[in-house]
Amino acid sequence: MPASDPVRSDIAWSSADTVVVHGKNLCEEVLGTVNLGDFAYLELFGRLPDPDQSVVFNALVVALVEHGLTPSALVTRLTHLGAPESLQGAVAAGLLGLGTTFVGTMEGAARYCAEAAATDTAWRTDDAALEKVADGIVASFLDRRAAVPGIGHPVHKPLDPRAEKLFAIARGHGIDPANERLVRAVRVAAEARTGKVLPVNVTGAIGAVATAMEVPLHVVRGLGVMARAIGLVGHLVEEGNQPVAGHIWREAEERATRR
Amino acid sequence: MPASDPVRSDIAWSSADTVVVHGKNLCEEVLGTVNLGDFAYLELFGRLPDPDQSVVFNALVVALVEHGLTPSALVTRLTHLGAPESLQGAVAAGLLGLGTTFVGTMEGAARYCAEAAATDTAWRTDDAALEKVADGIVASFLDRRAAVPGIGHPVHKPLDPRAEKLFAIARGHGIDPANERLVRAVRVAAEARTGKVLPVNVTGAIGAVATAMEVPLHVVRGLGVMARAIGLVGHLVEEGNQPVAGHIWREAEERATRR
Amino acid sequence: MPASDPVRSDIAWSSADTVVVHGKNLCEEVLGTVNLGDFAYLELFGRLPDPDQSVVFNALVVALVEHGLTPSALVTRLTHLGAPESLQGAVAAGLLGLGTTFVGTMEGAARYCAEAAATDTAWRTDDAALEKVADGIVASFLDRRAAVPGIGHPVHKPLDPRAEKLFAIARGHGIDPANERLVRAVRVAAEARTGKVLPVNVTGAIGAVATAMEVPLHVVRGLGVMARAIGLVGHLVEEGNQPVAGHIWREAEERATRR
Amino acid sequence: MPASDPVRSDIAWSSADTVVVHGKNLCEEVLGTVNLGDFAYLELFGRLPDPDQSVVFNALVVALVEHGLTPSALVTRLTHLGAPESLQGAVAAGLLGLGTTFVGTMEGAARYCAEAAATDTAWRTDDAALEKVADGIVASFLDRRAAVPGIGHPVHKPLDPRAEKLFAIARGHGIDPANERLVRAVRVAAEARTGKVLPVNVTGAIGAVATAMEVPLHVVRGLGVMARAIGLVGHLVEEGNQPVAGHIWREAEERATRR
Repeated sequence: MPASDPVRSDIAWSSADTVVVHGKNLCEEVLGTVNLGDFAYLELFGRLPDPDQSVVFNALVVALVEHGLTPSALVTRLTHLGAPESLQGAVAAGLLGLGTTFVGTMEGAARYCAEAAATDTAWRTDDAALEKVADGIVASFLDRRAAVPGIGHPVHKPLDPRAEKLFAIARGHGIDPANERLVRAVRVAAEARTGKVLPVNVTGAIGAVATAMEVPLHVVRGLGVMARAIGLVGHLVEEGNQPVAGHIWREAEERATRR
Repeated sequence: MPASDPVRSDIAWSSADTVVVHGKNLCEEVLGTVNLGDFAYLELFGRLPDPDQSVVFNALVVALVEHGLTPSALVTRLTHLGAPESLQGAVAAGLLGLGTTFVGTMEGAARYCAEAAATDTAWRTDDAALEKVADGIVASFLDRRAAVPGIGHPVHKPLDPRAEKLFAIARGHGIDPANERLVRAVRVAAEARTGKVLPVNVTGAIGAVATAMEVPLHVVRGLGVMARAIGLVGHLVEEGNQPVAGHIWREAEERATRR
Repeated sequence: MPASDPVRSDIAWSSADTVVVHGKNLCEEVLGTVNLGDFAYLELFGRLPDPDQSVVFNALVVALVEHGLTPSALVTRLTHLGAPESLQGAVAAGLLGLGTTFVGTMEGAARYCAEAAATDTAWRTDDAALEKVADGIVASFLDRRAAVPGIGHPVHKPLDPRAEKLFAIARGHGIDPANERLVRAVRVAAEARTGKVLPVNVTGAIGAVATAMEVPLHVVRGLGVMARAIGLVGHLVEEGNQPVAGHIWREAEERATRR
Repeated sequence: MPASDPVRSDIAWSSADTVVVHGKNLCEEVLGTVNLGDFAYLELFGRLPDPDQSVVFNALVVALVEHGLTPSALVTRLTHLGAPESLQGAVAAGLLGLGTTFVGTMEGAARYCAEAAATDTAWRTDDAALEKVADGIVASFLDRRAAVPGIGHPVHKPLDPRAEKLFAIARGHGIDPANERLVRAVRVAAEARTGKVLPVNVTGAIGAVATAMEVPLHVVRGLGVMARAIGLVGHLVEEGNQPVAGHIWREAEERATRR
């Protein structure tokens, strides 16, 4: 094949006694010293994080791993009920629900942060400009009767403690706080326009910080996917010890077809 | 509902200002200090690893993240070609190939380590017993013309550097080396019976060490699933910059239907 | 590429004005005259069914399409809740539960029919031999404390009307009734050994008739997969008009984390 | 539970000796007389098709079953390579690629047919209005540099024989031809604006006819999902006899990592 073969991947290669991933010798430079979150960073960025980036990136992904008995967790458990031999199938099924409803809000927050940065940067330093940009974002959602991504939570009011913690970690480790300020301004604008209490939630914080760390917009959802794969394995461990899927199924079936 | 409600999960709970996962206050005890691999350990074991366990567990999972352009990576890229809007679908599709052929060998090695420990323990201290147990394991596979899990590699000969490194890390961090000795004895017995060069490979090392760390047998495959979810997101990043799926498809289609 | 190119598929080919599938001109010989079940038969066997085979095969697959609010249907609906933009993801998630628990019983019945035919055929004509083979099958499951596939039902007692109907259709259309007799003998043997009422169920009838029609054992599960894909689309239609997934999730979450 | 229980499904119910699906007695009114395509229609519409609807609906879905070695077929085969024990996983993986790229064009054609009908109906009877509506549709895609759905094909020029056949079947069985005329007018407008040869393709015909049959827009993709599930089982049958996945993988891996 010619050097210009279009079927080419530069992520990994190996010889008899060496494995290299993203330019790192796996055995000499990675195993035993690089934690899983840092290796995930390497997969996304092609380089290892510096110590500050490591702390922030690990925190972002860790915050996404476990959200309790979500629809995804129920799906993984119900799939395991039918195909206990296929752990990968149960986890894959759970991941398929990470679409616009849940993970989409993280992506939505990342998108308005990225778009605000792309079209104008005055808001990064000027409070009046910030308010105007934030209000424009809010209006664009409310005008089409859509929820504003990244704000609001049924339980965590008036503040989502995870969002506050993630912002504090990011600030403490050198991440540009402009996106944090933007999401907080979006909150203020949305509360003013709706009269509701709409705390910046964990997806808003992750969208803002991930974008500040230059995670590409189309990969933001990937943070949720990699994190939740871990959490769903955890749910299968609990389902093995304390099964709920059978109960949920039988009750739903009985209720659904009652005559 | 009564206290005995069978629909119950003890993984996580939250109040307005607190989120608790496996008994840890997420904001105060986890975010900013616990890396992703340690959090995965928490999900599997319900407790955080000690520093030695952290190093070994992170190494095991990191070693599984990236194996180049595997069938799973091809599947994720080809699925993205058809449904670029659904990153979760592309990753889920790739995970579905983590079955008996690839991840099964890790599980197979873990299984014979676990079974050997369950039926007899003399081999843990007695070399003659070790040889006998190992030879029995090898015979049980060869008798049904099956490959012995955890040994052999097309490229990494006479040693798989990842296996050697993982064993060294495990020994250096207090993991009981009995399973390592068992897998190495399996190698010797298999080479004696077959005349082939059959190094302990990375899946053999992971199966052995994970079992020594008390990862339950039915969850061993989960280490591969969580790791590979990360790697598959990485492949989507590269596919975005350097696409190969379209080429592979068009060439395969043209070759397949040539008349 | 040489004529011996291993990347080859003979299912379909096309030119500017012709599409051929399994040797049939799609536009001239298929569209408008071949129904979906017959086309599925063509996909599996490489030839169209004769009129008798058409009736029986369509009945087998139709019987598998819809079983109410099963775990698979719940999974599809819960996945849709999170990713309403990805209908294919919701259906795929539901299919992932078609494993050993549910579809496996159909496969199990097909397997003992196929194995009985492979090892001995006296039972096909001799009643005493039939009883002995059936009792051996039952014993092989009960000895390892497994359920005997293809018999027993929580609701349909003393007969599963679907099984009876499928057997009648098969007999009426020239399918060899030997497997029906075998499954019925398995029922008798199992009831004798357990003292329970264990009607031949729909999966037993399908496994028996599909095997009599020479559906390969490893493809039997495929009948369930293709049928259920249709049923799961139907559940998404109802979920759109009469949503249940959100209720099931919220109730489960509330119950699960009650303190 | 109260009569107003929100967890309710009216698709199916059963008693000891009866199974009812969408109001039909499965054993008395369905099995043995209703083919798979008609049963799929019942799942979507809640009623059986009349004889004309039966012919057209079966033809639409049959036309979607098999498109050769598509990315979905490759994905199913590659997934089978890694997890041969899980037929349902291999099919599910293949379905996950039925997103915007491929099935989306069918949905796109259905959408502009549905939108044209919703905003104005003069085009259904007036040729000048038809041309204007069609040109507006074409312009709306070209203005954002998007391909116009439902037209164009790399091989089937100047006509896609499947589209022509499906339209002929639809006309011959009483389906309102207004959407056919609209898609043909879209073709003319697109060719005029681009100078390219852009035949109405099979997805355009299916989108147009399905919409004329009142398949809801959000379910149009479901026709492709149910059809392709059948086709992917067919590819697994061929992969069992004539495997290609291993070759494609090994060649891709070797080419990709050549140094």
